[in-house]
Amino acid sequence: MRYRLDLSYDGSEYAGWQIQPNGMSIQQTVEEALAAVVQEKSKLHASGRTDQGVHARLQVAHFDLNQDLRINVIPRALNAVLPDDIRVLAFRKVPNTFHARRSVRLKEYRYFIHNSTVLPPFHRRYRTLIRKPLDIRAMQAAADCLVGTHDFAAFSANADRIVESTVRTLSILRVRKRGPEVVIIAAADGFLYRMVRSLSGFLLRVGEGALAPSCAKEVLESCVRTAVVPTAPPQGLFLWNVHY
Amino acid sequence: MRYRLDLSYDGSEYAGWQIQPNGMSIQQTVEEALAAVVQEKSKLHASGRTDQGVHARLQVAHFDLNQDLRINVIPRALNAVLPDDIRVLAFRKVPNTFHARRSVRLKEYRYFIHNSTVLPPFHRRYRTLIRKPLDIRAMQAAADCLVGTHDFAAFSANADRIVESTVRTLSILRVRKRGPEVVIIAAADGFLYRMVRSLSGFLLRVGEGALAPSCAKEVLESCVRTAVVPTAPPQGLFLWNVHY
Repeated sequence: MRYRLDLSYDGSEYAGWQIQPNGMSIQQTVEEALAAVVQEKSKLHASGRTDQGVHARLQVAHFDLNQDLRINVIPRALNAVLPDDIRVLAFRKVPNTFHARRSVRLKEYRYFIHNSTVLPPFHRRYRTLIRKPLDIRAMQAAADCLVGTHDFAAFSANADRIVESTVRTLSILRVRKRGPEVVIIAAADGFLYRMVRSLSGFLLRVGEGALAPSCAKEVLESCVRTAVVPTAPPQGLFLWNVHY
Repeated sequence: MRYRLDLSYDGSEYAGWQIQPNGMSIQQTVEEALAAVVQEKSKLHASGRTDQGVHARLQVAHFDLNQDLRINVIPRALNAVLPDDIRVLAFRKVPNTFHARRSVRLKEYRYFIHNSTVLPPFHRRYRTLIRKPLDIRAMQAAADCLVGTHDFAAFSANADRIVESTVRTLSILRVRKRGPEVVIIAAADGFLYRMVRSLSGFLLRVGEGALAPSCAKEVLESCVRTAVVPTAPPQGLFLWNVHY
């Protein structure tokens, strides 16, 4: 039987989603809680990995089990065992054709920036502080050049990874400002390694006036990752939504 | 010379505002940072104490110093020394007649509740989870009975303290709901020890249906603190604003 688990987590204290030799991962923490509750080991498959310090408003995972679980009981039982920075939001049985990663139609990430002189203490884990006033219109103009189906190799940190294709369809890249809060909203059929943090790092350089919005097209078409595209820090990033 | 310091802090990791034998206090942390920056020891006087685990969106303090400080430099210098869960928002010179506690005209506290089945991990330090659906209208009806100038002894934890008077003027006590978030807003010329958490604990019992709104008047007039008034947990509470 296949089960789907909808999770939310604060990534601050974890080495990322994926099980790793150094540092506790979200995956391991949830797998251990699950084993304690259902008395059987199972491997979790997530919609994708999140890096160290990256959060998830919604992360979806599936697992297989030879048990008919009582759906209503599991979320509370898991939440009683899990630390309070990881929560189970929903739990259900799914057909075997469902795959948390392969069945994704659209993923949405949001990158939160506090654009002011002082970062309020309550946002210190969830926003990136940028002191220089950001030019939102310039950021949106650059973002508009990046929307669509493109080879995003220039906005990915390959890090010895071999990816079959670096072409993705970025359907939304929007920059929104509300008071001192600036949010970069990115939605795509899939994202390359560190793609959202690379897009955000680039847009922040445009917003600070270090790069012209028109650079976006050149950088994209170069298909080569260079120092022009910095990786924005992890703590502002949230996996926001996963659509199937 | 007298100086005013506007602070914001996440109280989660501290034993409260006031210097204490066990555990680090906000006061001590800020006094040490200040001594490191201005090379002179001085005592901070706050608008009031906040308990262990209670936050401040705005806390105001003053201190005296025999130095003419460069106003513009101090906030950044202090923020560079302070841990990131305490921030200096503003800093200015004030006349000697200003006193952070005695000059207060109005103080505002807000108590945040997450009224749903699961507490999102990002709110775990800043909201109190109440699973039972709250009756906001009943809470507001009870709150309306408490507004005004009254003896609030029944809504205070005296804890061996001798207070000259337990009469206070509560000018605002409002209950607001936005999605799963319920906020209790309380403003007064001053608050007794644990008064906001006592008012919140009482209103939550009314909201859960354990007490009728009309109880408020009886409890208030009894002038005796009993088990009818529980103390709500600290992590939902924020010192929100201080007016002079």
